[in-house]
Amino acid sequence: MRIPKHIGIIPDGNRRWSINNGLSKETGYTYGLDPGLILFNLCRKIGIKEITYYGFTTDNAKRPKTQRKAFTQACIKAVKILSKEDADLLVLGNYNSPMFPSELLPYTKRQTFGKGGTKVNFLVNYGWEWDLSNLNHNNSSNRKKITNLLKSNDISRVDLIIRWGGRRRLSGFLPVQSIYSDFYVVDEYWPDFKQEHFYKALNWYNTQDITLGG
Amino acid sequence: MRIPKHIGIIPDGNRRWSINNGLSKETGYTYGLDPGLILFNLCRKIGIKEITYYGFTTDNAKRPKTQRKAFTQACIKAVKILSKEDADLLVLGNYNSPMFPSELLPYTKRQTFGKGGTKVNFLVNYGWEWDLSNLNHNNSSNRKKITNLLKSNDISRVDLIIRWGGRRRLSGFLPVQSIYSDFYVVDEYWPDFKQEHFYKALNWYNTQDITLGG
Repeated sequence: MRIPKHIGIIPDGNRRWSINNGLSKETGYTYGLDPGLILFNLCRKIGIKEITYYGFTTDNAKRPKTQRKAFTQACIKAVKILSKEDADLLVLGNYNSPMFPSELLPYTKRQTFGKGGTKVNFLVNYGWEWDLSNLNHNNSSNRKKITNLLKSNDISRVDLIIRWGGRRRLSGFLPVQSIYSDFYVVDEYWPDFKQEHFYKALNWYNTQDITLGG
Repeated sequence: MRIPKHIGIIPDGNRRWSINNGLSKETGYTYGLDPGLILFNLCRKIGIKEITYYGFTTDNAKRPKTQRKAFTQACIKAVKILSKEDADLLVLGNYNSPMFPSELLPYTKRQTFGKGGTKVNFLVNYGWEWDLSNLNHNNSSNRKKITNLLKSNDISRVDLIIRWGGRRRLSGFLPVQSIYSDFYVVDEYWPDFKQEHFYKALNWYNTQDITLGG
């Protein structure tokens, strides 16, 4: 079976899940913590080398304060949970903004936790415009030069993006690394994560070809 | 009904269609010309203001010569067909490359044909790296400044991307304008285009929300 080297995770649908469960909108984020860890362990087991979690974006940061607080706290907790695993962990996002939680500043340089071995990228207060903002040092259309100048240059091309919550869009997720990604959508909300969603995505990925446009 | 302002068309599956029909791989491109015109007229009828067709990319240009010749000829014909309609037409791509057909050089500045009224963008020898290669004049993470510096700065944000041929990936299609696009995939190959594919895509789009991450 062809296993993706790098998967991107868009854990969407937390607010819709909350409403469906009669809870206030911001409650759902906490219920996404367990799925995140289960998924990490599945990736380890299967041999996926790199995982990028879409935490929150500069767009999301415009939402009401109670929601912002809730998803920020969930990201902090998620990073702390992952730092107890065997992971080479990096938190990436605009840390020059007040929206970036100071608790995560120590994680903005990649560090090995435990025995390491799985690259884990966690996007926090990430913005596509921020990611592209260093390209002023570029003077060519050489792909390598462009990707080297991304703020996210330590994140490799994504093979498979899985989005929970039914939306079929990237919503700013790593626009350059996603250029050739296969995109799989799970209709269920992220807090309703089941292992079978992930296995279905992998089975589907296995039936795709890789052409990179060639 | 909520109608997209701008749709992106990825007319994929021409080679697979050819093989399925017992033809040589490069034959299918010609069969994509009629669908392109039918689609244009549907968009006019419905009131879609802007259409971007994915002609061919710098990646595609690495394919065998017979294929390259065939898809290049199909693009030339498609542009000539569209120039007989009421369209504000622009051909966009790296015209400083020998892969860019000289026949299309006159179309690389936007011109109004007929009565105009529908913006039509046709990507020819387009590369995402080429599109981003002017960002060296950028010195900020201001979105407007970034989008103004794209080679494709005359192409607006895409609301809905429809890809024929079953692949669920963007393959380098306007990475910045696609950031918030809803993405609809038709399993049939492009030469097997049916109007109902398009109507289904529009009906699906109508059920989506627009949040831009907010």
